[in-house]
Amino acid sequence: MTIEAVIAEVLRQIRPTEEERTFVKRLMGELKELAVETVEELGLDVKPHFVGSLAKDTYLAGDHDVDLFLAFPLETPLQELREKGLELGKVIARKLDSYEIAYAEHPYVRASYKGVSVDIVPCYDVNSWRDVRTAVDRSILHTRWVNENIKGKNDEVRLLKRFLKGINAYGSEIYVRGFSGYLAEILVIKYGSFLDVLKKADFMLRQKIIDPKNWLRREPEIAMRTVKREVELDRPLIVLDPVDPRRNVAANLSWERYGVFYFNAIKFLKEPSTKFFFPEKSRAGNYLDELRRKGTHLVTLIFGKQDLVDDLLLPQLERSARGFEKALEREGFRVFGWDYGYSGDKAFIMLEVDRAERPSVRIHPGPEFFTERGRDFYRKNERVWLRGKRLYAEKSVKENILDVISELLEKNQVSLGKNLREAVKDADFLVDYVPGDLEGEAYLFLSRKKEGLKG
Amino acid sequence: MTIEAVIAEVLRQIRPTEEERTFVKRLMGELKELAVETVEELGLDVKPHFVGSLAKDTYLAGDHDVDLFLAFPLETPLQELREKGLELGKVIARKLDSYEIAYAEHPYVRASYKGVSVDIVPCYDVNSWRDVRTAVDRSILHTRWVNENIKGKNDEVRLLKRFLKGINAYGSEIYVRGFSGYLAEILVIKYGSFLDVLKKADFMLRQKIIDPKNWLRREPEIAMRTVKREVELDRPLIVLDPVDPRRNVAANLSWERYGVFYFNAIKFLKEPSTKFFFPEKSRAGNYLDELRRKGTHLVTLIFGKQDLVDDLLLPQLERSARGFEKALEREGFRVFGWDYGYSGDKAFIMLEVDRAERPSVRIHPGPEFFTERGRDFYRKNERVWLRGKRLYAEKSVKENILDVISELLEKNQVSLGKNLREAVKDADFLVDYVPGDLEGEAYLFLSRKKEGLKG
Repeated sequence: MTIEAVIAEVLRQIRPTEEERTFVKRLMGELKELAVETVEELGLDVKPHFVGSLAKDTYLAGDHDVDLFLAFPLETPLQELREKGLELGKVIARKLDSYEIAYAEHPYVRASYKGVSVDIVPCYDVNSWRDVRTAVDRSILHTRWVNENIKGKNDEVRLLKRFLKGINAYGSEIYVRGFSGYLAEILVIKYGSFLDVLKKADFMLRQKIIDPKNWLRREPEIAMRTVKREVELDRPLIVLDPVDPRRNVAANLSWERYGVFYFNAIKFLKEPSTKFFFPEKSRAGNYLDELRRKGTHLVTLIFGKQDLVDDLLLPQLERSARGFEKALEREGFRVFGWDYGYSGDKAFIMLEVDRAERPSVRIHPGPEFFTERGRDFYRKNERVWLRGKRLYAEKSVKENILDVISELLEKNQVSLGKNLREAVKDADFLVDYVPGDLEGEAYLFLSRKKEGLKG
Repeated sequence: MTIEAVIAEVLRQIRPTEEERTFVKRLMGELKELAVETVEELGLDVKPHFVGSLAKDTYLAGDHDVDLFLAFPLETPLQELREKGLELGKVIARKLDSYEIAYAEHPYVRASYKGVSVDIVPCYDVNSWRDVRTAVDRSILHTRWVNENIKGKNDEVRLLKRFLKGINAYGSEIYVRGFSGYLAEILVIKYGSFLDVLKKADFMLRQKIIDPKNWLRREPEIAMRTVKREVELDRPLIVLDPVDPRRNVAANLSWERYGVFYFNAIKFLKEPSTKFFFPEKSRAGNYLDELRRKGTHLVTLIFGKQDLVDDLLLPQLERSARGFEKALEREGFRVFGWDYGYSGDKAFIMLEVDRAERPSVRIHPGPEFFTERGRDFYRKNERVWLRGKRLYAEKSVKENILDVISELLEKNQVSLGKNLREAVKDADFLVDYVPGDLEGEAYLFLSRKKEGLKG
């Protein structure tokens, strides 16, 4: 299949049909009318704006989440904006099918209307980055900038987004750390097309700084401060936000996700295929065979997921997995890798380790022998010897990895996500065995198909 | 038992009896006569000198090795000294009971006479350190200096030597790295008595420099050069040789042997006992019980000892043991300790390790992904993933420690003593089992009774 044929086929699947466009336009029209009407009813000075991929016409077929932002005048006190914004959202939402309250920097309404999810979010009516007061205020500016600059490349953005989704590099959530939709739009606007962005995968990294709005010339001081800060944080890319020179649009992009994009871009250009956009599910294998093949061991912790949303749960699971890695390495186990996630109301952490048992003694390095501490160490330890000036002693330790983990948790020597501490302590621990619903996950993890670059 | 009673009891055992003294004196008289006579026969200009502990009257009861040095005039060429010295030694030795040729810096004669070993060693007749030309030339000066300064403290030296032997810190050979007899004599002369030397165990280390001849005032430049050199080499003690400011008498003393002296001195002063001088043999235990208790594994290599003398064999065995330690640690095994030695014509190296098997895969860290080498690494490896900017891959490795060792030896990845290389490659390898004659050694090693400070 030629690259053109692949692109044509993918576009056929991801470009919204005329029917879908009509549906979306009508839906937005209705929502706008409803919002204007409700604002008037309540006698408020609020402008409704659509933001996000629907407003920019960069949404993928079938992906219709609506973002309706309610812009309050800049002089509104923050507390008032929060209260009246939520109230207004609720009144609008009551006219739709159903709704619930969701939480980000401030609470907002997530409603459902004709099968589409509608986020109704209060914000300030900013005209410039200098006015920005809350995290969501830039969205209106982003939407405006994209619409002014996209020049009909909307399908190119769709291709890039679908490609990033297919290779698992899409989403700027903290637990993904991939490319955001806005970043994809900027890259297409900057380099001209989907293929051009892929061809620039190596170039971009070397260039490091992308500055479509020329902030480095317009606002050199502020822009340079941003660049310096982001260089120090060792980001793979620094994309100065066209609507705010203080912000790196790629701040959440990790080296790992960029690397995934990097190798897939090379591969796709060499051997184009629709598989990059629509990957087949990995064929499952047997995780016990993997363990036997590798001679490693799998420790799995399963515990209640504490009703946490992904934004909180997943980073805390990652933190906890890293905490176990560190603590176990200190105890002499080698951690080959970790994995985490949830299934139903149960969260899990998997650790692949080099052994399930260790010796029951450990060599404990002590101080130099001719010091007060050295003489103490000599007195306190039974089996003690010298290497050079340093004393060493033999120390009894727990052999089994589950006993070691229990002891580490008891002594609070594992750094855990703060909302998970209690749950982890009551976790079920399993060695070289997982319940049926985690067998597939265990296989993908152990076979490295999950984080692997070669799938 | 009081300290005085202990000392009296030890002296009773180590001080030569009148009978023994008479025997030794007569023996030396006869040897001297024989030497003078032979020198005249051969028409040589050579002065016989006795050196060593017999000549200094610091020998222990029953310990009668005679050192007869044959001093040639300074103007003798080295080659002539070697040849004529060996010839003269042989002619003298033929008049004794038996002899053989031994090798140090130059060859010498080791004879036997009336059950006593007699070393007949050619040297230069030096009067000052400025004349010293070969390693043995200082001996005559040492003997003279000790005899001029010992002032009747001969028994104190005997006590210190026996103490050092008892705690296994005596002997300056490279494979012991303890206190030499001459060092013991200097310490007694400097501090006044056996007990005073023990009481100064901590003080000496802090003082660091011992300079009985005041070289730092008499020859400041040369003496300071010696001090600087030895400080850089991080010696526990710097004892400027009373007969040569260029030499540290304690150059071969290791921190480990000093540490053994240090703790035993403290213990003896607190709880005096004859056991320090005459230790009981450690009660043997079962090495397999030790392995079970510790959960570790014992790898033993046994190979021919290549007819090497201790001075060559033992340092090379140590070097090889360290080589195995390094190589195995690189391969992911933890080496808890090593031991070496020989029994009959077989040398052995023992390695205590944390496991006999490792996983059959290893995580191989690669380069940063966005480099030429990174793209290569990606192409060449099957299972590859990212952590940060770095690529990692899974690599198959041998699981069993014996296979790992074989592979390391095949690839010359173990640093071995040069005369042992071939023998080690043909070694027998044993895991968790040793032949009967090594069972005791294995127990002492694994239980840490061998290098342990608490016996």
